[in-house]
Amino acid sequence: MTMSTALLTDHYELTMLQAALRSGAAHRRAVFEVFARHLPGGRRYGVVAGVGRVLDELERFRFGDDELTFLREHKVVDEPTLAFLADYRFSGSIYGYREGDLYFPASPILVVEGTFAEAVLLETLVLSVLNHDCAIASAASRMANAAGTRPLIEMGSRRTHERAAVAAARAAYIAGFAATSNLMAGYEYGLPTAGTAAHAFTLLHDTERAAFEAQIASLGESTTLLVDTYSVAEAVATAVELAGNELGAVRIDSGDLAAAAQEVREQLDALGAFKTRILVTSDLDEYAIAALAAAPVDAYGVGTSLVTGSGVPTAALVYKMVARETASGKLEPVAKRSVGKPSRGGRKYAYRLLDDQGHFETELVTTSDVAPEGGIALLHELVRDGELVGREPLEAARERHRAVVGRLPQEALHLGRGYAAISTEFA
Amino acid sequence: MTMSTALLTDHYELTMLQAALRSGAAHRRAVFEVFARHLPGGRRYGVVAGVGRVLDELERFRFGDDELTFLREHKVVDEPTLAFLADYRFSGSIYGYREGDLYFPASPILVVEGTFAEAVLLETLVLSVLNHDCAIASAASRMANAAGTRPLIEMGSRRTHERAAVAAARAAYIAGFAATSNLMAGYEYGLPTAGTAAHAFTLLHDTERAAFEAQIASLGESTTLLVDTYSVAEAVATAVELAGNELGAVRIDSGDLAAAAQEVREQLDALGAFKTRILVTSDLDEYAIAALAAAPVDAYGVGTSLVTGSGVPTAALVYKMVARETASGKLEPVAKRSVGKPSRGGRKYAYRLLDDQGHFETELVTTSDVAPEGGIALLHELVRDGELVGREPLEAARERHRAVVGRLPQEALHLGRGYAAISTEFA
Repeated sequence: MTMSTALLTDHYELTMLQAALRSGAAHRRAVFEVFARHLPGGRRYGVVAGVGRVLDELERFRFGDDELTFLREHKVVDEPTLAFLADYRFSGSIYGYREGDLYFPASPILVVEGTFAEAVLLETLVLSVLNHDCAIASAASRMANAAGTRPLIEMGSRRTHERAAVAAARAAYIAGFAATSNLMAGYEYGLPTAGTAAHAFTLLHDTERAAFEAQIASLGESTTLLVDTYSVAEAVATAVELAGNELGAVRIDSGDLAAAAQEVREQLDALGAFKTRILVTSDLDEYAIAALAAAPVDAYGVGTSLVTGSGVPTAALVYKMVARETASGKLEPVAKRSVGKPSRGGRKYAYRLLDDQGHFETELVTTSDVAPEGGIALLHELVRDGELVGREPLEAARERHRAVVGRLPQEALHLGRGYAAISTEFA
Repeated sequence: MTMSTALLTDHYELTMLQAALRSGAAHRRAVFEVFARHLPGGRRYGVVAGVGRVLDELERFRFGDDELTFLREHKVVDEPTLAFLADYRFSGSIYGYREGDLYFPASPILVVEGTFAEAVLLETLVLSVLNHDCAIASAASRMANAAGTRPLIEMGSRRTHERAAVAAARAAYIAGFAATSNLMAGYEYGLPTAGTAAHAFTLLHDTERAAFEAQIASLGESTTLLVDTYSVAEAVATAVELAGNELGAVRIDSGDLAAAAQEVREQLDALGAFKTRILVTSDLDEYAIAALAAAPVDAYGVGTSLVTGSGVPTAALVYKMVARETASGKLEPVAKRSVGKPSRGGRKYAYRLLDDQGHFETELVTTSDVAPEGGIALLHELVRDGELVGREPLEAARERHRAVVGRLPQEALHLGRGYAAISTEFA
């Protein structure tokens, strides 16, 4: 294990570097851009997440002795390239959309300026972070819209890679989730964590009653009791008998959740437990959440579909060189002509334009740095000449997301497949 | 950052522990089992991967000062529980299917025996690792079957979380991939790594010719040149002109790959570059690979679909308590009765039975430890009384996978949706 992130990188980034160092082109100034050619899954908007993690990973992007020895022994690159890597520090500048903001096809969500050598090396890691985190946040935002004012708890850690789980919890929080089950996300990012007990706890005890007694004795009457291990109705009766009307919540994790919630609510109310809340879990996604809108549900726990991006596990973001210095020292736009993979050359600036009701209307992507009247500038300085300047608290991203979703046209919140909610214009 | 894996865990595992410590039930012996209720996506078999990673993570599953301070300050658990965690070492035993082996619905791929306290804590981490790695390996195996003898290169790092990428490369290697683009997978697991150049390298230079010259000068004539930045035909002509007939390979990353491969092969042969290989990349999955079987393709690079499990990004494995000690000290089977989530109580043993042609016919899951005649025992000792004893080299898993796929009935290799290739019997 190493704390360095430098090897979280594709082999070819280093061989390209080697060949470019040899040709001399490695030192040409270059601009790379992260953007999506389309929003996969018929999504109407994308959510930017992971920018803060990119900055964290960038700080640890160092080739130390262990990394260099590996590269030498496995003949990945030659000695001049190893010497370059040993001294490697990104000294360029990075501009990006803020976390929690939205993006649409062609939005230049990250712009990396530096020499070719220093900028190309970041491709794989930058894309890994953003493709994962944006995919999760984009799904989470749909769930948050579907849930309305009811809180969402992220509990999908067990359904994704153990470190992806931490990043997923962070992305979900940005997009509006209230808490996560993942303790590392609490430790590393300060997210609220939540959870009480699983079926195993009930099964461990000789009776469900004994399990509930043990849980209440230890965690208090405000705890959440899981009521579907055996008979839901019997469990609810036992729960209220033991905890009284101060019982915090019951959790239902199987069956027809709408019907079960209705029955449990009626039973709780009949027993006088009016304040006891109902938490539902069990393969929920944004559609299932929306379908439960009329059911007496107080909170949702979401697992698998959150951490797998609800059908869209990766955001289709690419990292493309859009401009580079020529032999004559001039920065010129470039773009490949590969079939079906369009990209537009030139260093971009991006602004969002509003209609007269204050809703987002157009994403303006331009090669001019002159802001259009009334346009909201979307690119912010993250790294200035190698120095990280763009850090912000996670709460700022979460607040921003809430605000920008409120400015989307109404149809952007439809869950069905569709087109991007606002159109991208190039100038 | 911490190297401890202990917080890669759901909050409720710790609150259950606290309540069970208080009730005394925490010290009851218990057996947990990892299994899949079904094979998602209509898959015909699952591939076990991640077992070695579970063992690595288990060794680092320690609550140190940082972890305990976090849990105390955030009031996750009480002081007696913190004291338990400070001393926590898994002292039980773990049995598991070997990596590279197959699994089917209800196969008990991991059996964890210990006290409830020590076994319940491992749930989240064990599932995170296995659900991810088994999903990737199961997809990778289908791709390897489709590719036949042509090598597959894993290049999906940029489309998944940066650490998930490393695990995905490992899982793909077990399932038959030849190499990965991911350098960390080379560093941590010794996987062969590969790659040469991207479109940016061509665009960086003033002409494609200058880029190819630079690459050949640095990486040699045996390198792989990317030929679809501008015109494929012109690029191939330039490539052979510069590298001669010793040119290693060309890569095509866009367009109709079958048609392009055919044209490029004809052009290469006409130029005398008979030995130059053709590598294709560009959103390949097992279906696209199968469709290219008749095309003159020499190797495949697979990205997105590999790291996202080709439509099945998580393996649907669960970790369920199947037996526990009662108040009277007897180990008894347990199973919840939640609607639609069947599980079978009791400590399981598993054997695979062959038909008279030597093909796999039945997965026998039994509560008896008496091996049936001719049955292949599937559970192997991984941890004995807290000591790791089940490590094996990755090559062993890769060899095993090749062997077991050869014993599947022929219809198991069909790519379409279907049922499990062999039936599971309970005894």
